Amino acid sequence: MSLLFRPLFEKESSTYTYLLADVDTKEAIIIDAVDNTQQRDIDLIEELGLDLRYIVETHIHADHITSSCPLKQRFRNAQIVFGAANLITCADILIKDGENLNFGSYQMIAMTTPGHTNGCMSYIVDDKVFTGDALLIRSCGRCDFQDGSAEKLFDSIQKIFTLANETLVYPAHDYVGRTVSSIGEEKQFNEMIGDSVDKDEFMRRVNAMDLSLPAKIHVAVPANQVCGTKIMADRT
Amino acid sequence: MSLLFRPLFEKESSTYTYLLADVDTKEAIIIDAVDNTQQRDIDLIEELGLDLRYIVETHIHADHITSSCPLKQRFRNAQIVFGAANLITCADILIKDGENLNFGSYQMIAMTTPGHTNGCMSYIVDDKVFTGDALLIRSCGRCDFQDGSAEKLFDSIQKIFTLANETLVYPAHDYVGRTVSSIGEEKQFNEMIGDSVDKDEFMRRVNAMDLSLPAKIHVAVPANQVCGTKIMADRT
Repeated sequence: MSLLFRPLFEKESSTYTYLLADVDTKEAIIIDAVDNTQQRDIDLIEELGLDLRYIVETHIHADHITSSCPLKQRFRNAQIVFGAANLITCADILIKDGENLNFGSYQMIAMTTPGHTNGCMSYIVDDKVFTGDALLIRSCGRCDFQDGSAEKLFDSIQKIFTLANETLVYPAHDYVGRTVSSIGEEKQFNEMIGDSVDKDEFMRRVNAMDLSLPAKIHVAVPANQVCGTKIMADRT
Repeated sequence: MSLLFRPLFEKESSTYTYLLADVDTKEAIIIDAVDNTQQRDIDLIEELGLDLRYIVETHIHADHITSSCPLKQRFRNAQIVFGAANLITCADILIKDGENLNFGSYQMIAMTTPGHTNGCMSYIVDDKVFTGDALLIRSCGRCDFQDGSAEKLFDSIQKIFTLANETLVYPAHDYVGRTVSSIGEEKQFNEMIGDSVDKDEFMRRVNAMDLSLPAKIHVAVPANQVCGTKIMADRT
């Protein structure tokens, strides 16, 4: 029993895509795949002879377009997975808190972590948690669009913080080139929500973020609500 | 006994910096640290309470300036490590093929892998090999400056390929966002030097690369030959 694990980076939106597989059975999962890098990901999956079973999204992204649909067109065994709170019809599986997906000897456990968007999920595999835009390294997701809620995000991060301190944290983004952290480290050093930050202070910090909208939001959100299909159709 | 391992990415030159530490003793090594991201790296080392022992370079880089000297100024226990073939005086240790550096319960084993430059080293820690610009993911380093030699690089990569197939390959760069490969995978899929490429064909491929010079080469190489000190002096 051995886990293949490949973090992959998309420079334009600083997005991490994660490819995981059981080395023995070749069954695989990909998390947050991006359209710009779909050929890289397809090549890798094919070279490694992986049997892609699940194309998983942590949430409906606003900063890039997913490659879920193109990947599904190429890998016919794969099912597209979103959190159940996302009101979309292109997903094959709308997963709920605590539900599992199996790939080979491994399990991916879903955890609802709303706040950045209402449909945000985190996923646990082995000693790793994929936190999407809920918990970032030393930071957290913004909460000012797509039914975001700083109050909910506080509770979600507390839920993530119930994992063991040694659990490795793999976020959907990092803008300064960090690739991984740990639960213990984020409890201690996260600048938005450390051990000493209460909900009111967290909400104040999140609401003070004052970020401009992602450049692609008006294209990316509608495209991602249909798993990227419309954009692909436009391009062909 | 547990290894802390943090790959870190510098976007401008697509360079990977690697921070490794023994979780118990906190003794740490950093490989190929970059000046642009030195504050990020200093913050991380300090937050984690690491005792930085070795600041290791795979080679004299031509595309970015090292942060070796600034790191050493901050972390006084640390020694700067270069391969012995590099004719520089700023290194504390000029390491030879097969020599080890210890950090806590872990060992880093040095391996000469000339070709991209004559002083190129790879380093083995645990199940990982840090290949610098010798072996890249699906590619390899260029050989057209700093005493590069495609013939030597062929032999160096064959030497790297004697490692177990499961060994994880962490290069100094990847330009399309891949972060890790394996020896078995590179033997099979490397586009420059797979199992079926002989030395003549490899040399032909390397010589056909036809790349423009790195934008920073005339600043970076002299700066890196003094471990980054002159540049730091200019900036203060």
